[in-house]
Amino acid sequence: MSQKPKAVVLLSGGLDSATCLAIARDRGFAPLAISFRYGQRHLHELAAAARLAKALGAQRHMVADIDLRAFGGSALTADIAVPKDRAEGEMSSGIPITYVPARNTIFLSFALALAEVEQAQDIYIGVNAVDYSGYPDCRPDFIAAFEKMANLATKAAVGDGRRLTVHTPLITLSKAEIIKTGLKLGVDYGMTTSCYDPTPEGLACGHCDACKLRLKGFAEAGLTDPAPYA
Amino acid sequence: MSQKPKAVVLLSGGLDSATCLAIARDRGFAPLAISFRYGQRHLHELAAAARLAKALGAQRHMVADIDLRAFGGSALTADIAVPKDRAEGEMSSGIPITYVPARNTIFLSFALALAEVEQAQDIYIGVNAVDYSGYPDCRPDFIAAFEKMANLATKAAVGDGRRLTVHTPLITLSKAEIIKTGLKLGVDYGMTTSCYDPTPEGLACGHCDACKLRLKGFAEAGLTDPAPYA
Repeated sequence: MSQKPKAVVLLSGGLDSATCLAIARDRGFAPLAISFRYGQRHLHELAAAARLAKALGAQRHMVADIDLRAFGGSALTADIAVPKDRAEGEMSSGIPITYVPARNTIFLSFALALAEVEQAQDIYIGVNAVDYSGYPDCRPDFIAAFEKMANLATKAAVGDGRRLTVHTPLITLSKAEIIKTGLKLGVDYGMTTSCYDPTPEGLACGHCDACKLRLKGFAEAGLTDPAPYA
Repeated sequence: MSQKPKAVVLLSGGLDSATCLAIARDRGFAPLAISFRYGQRHLHELAAAARLAKALGAQRHMVADIDLRAFGGSALTADIAVPKDRAEGEMSSGIPITYVPARNTIFLSFALALAEVEQAQDIYIGVNAVDYSGYPDCRPDFIAAFEKMANLATKAAVGDGRRLTVHTPLITLSKAEIIKTGLKLGVDYGMTTSCYDPTPEGLACGHCDACKLRLKGFAEAGLTDPAPYA
């Protein structure tokens, strides 16, 4: 049995969260991956998450069912067109239509519950404040406020004094830096999927904000994205 | 169409949340009730929530499906015996086995998402710090920290400046005071259910912590509990 401390890692199946999982393992944690079936338009990312959890040595991979479609209002869960081929200025201005209401708050709350029952004191989330695409719940002040709340929320923290830390190892990295970090740690980015609007076969569209940020990251790192594109 | 501002009200089907819903309506809000099918041992409380939402004038009643059983570890969701006939000193010492990991954090996160899509700026939750039965996520400092986090989490708050408030109108009231408040506002407590371990027909056991606190509240208010007991 591993005597390593456990860390809960939010794993979407994308490039950032895969890197985050590799970092948690590299830092000496036994990673427990958690993914969500949240009414997303496509399930390729859950298949990718399962492959990544295995390949990157997660001790457990939990898939939680939560229906965010009931809330409506996002291009990632509702029948609204995903924006394509937007210029960078357009991407960074305002909060995009692909925003899902309170998504990271809900995801982190589930991670908190899993951490408590697994007696883990660490949560890893691959949020990024450099090319974060405009989501408020990816910002450092949000993460700090969540961590503070979490330490008042659980029996583990309040009753037993097991302080919880939310780690955001990617928060100040560019996409190119994230890719270089992951490659050093053995991440196979061909297994990851970032596209908001893939083909039915799971090929990335190459034109949504997520694809454009990702392709730009590989280009800046002087590399070619190994993931399959349409 | 009502021009009243909307408020999201967490509605369990119990005495406290029913009172909370009546208070939100009395304060001029159009209440939007939210309940959870979270793997609880019995669904009588969801039936009670639906009746209460209708009787107390909720504009909408959303039931969100989330499976907290996957986390295990609580007598409210797992196959662990509910403690019975505990003395008051025993009840108030420590955090009980009926604690569900991060439950209010998860519930409030969903309420936050619903508030955002409904453009509500107010959430009501019936937590109580007097006879709160030992749950950390019912305490005032937890609620304050959640509210602070919530105001950094959403497009509504960060992008559009719609500040969110979490109201806890019961937090300093005794059970007897809650009951008297609700009766003035027309709550039919015969429609509510508080028991952790009811009979298959939905009759309250009268012996779990929740039943004992409730019966004591009615006794202190000089009243008889109209709910059906086994």
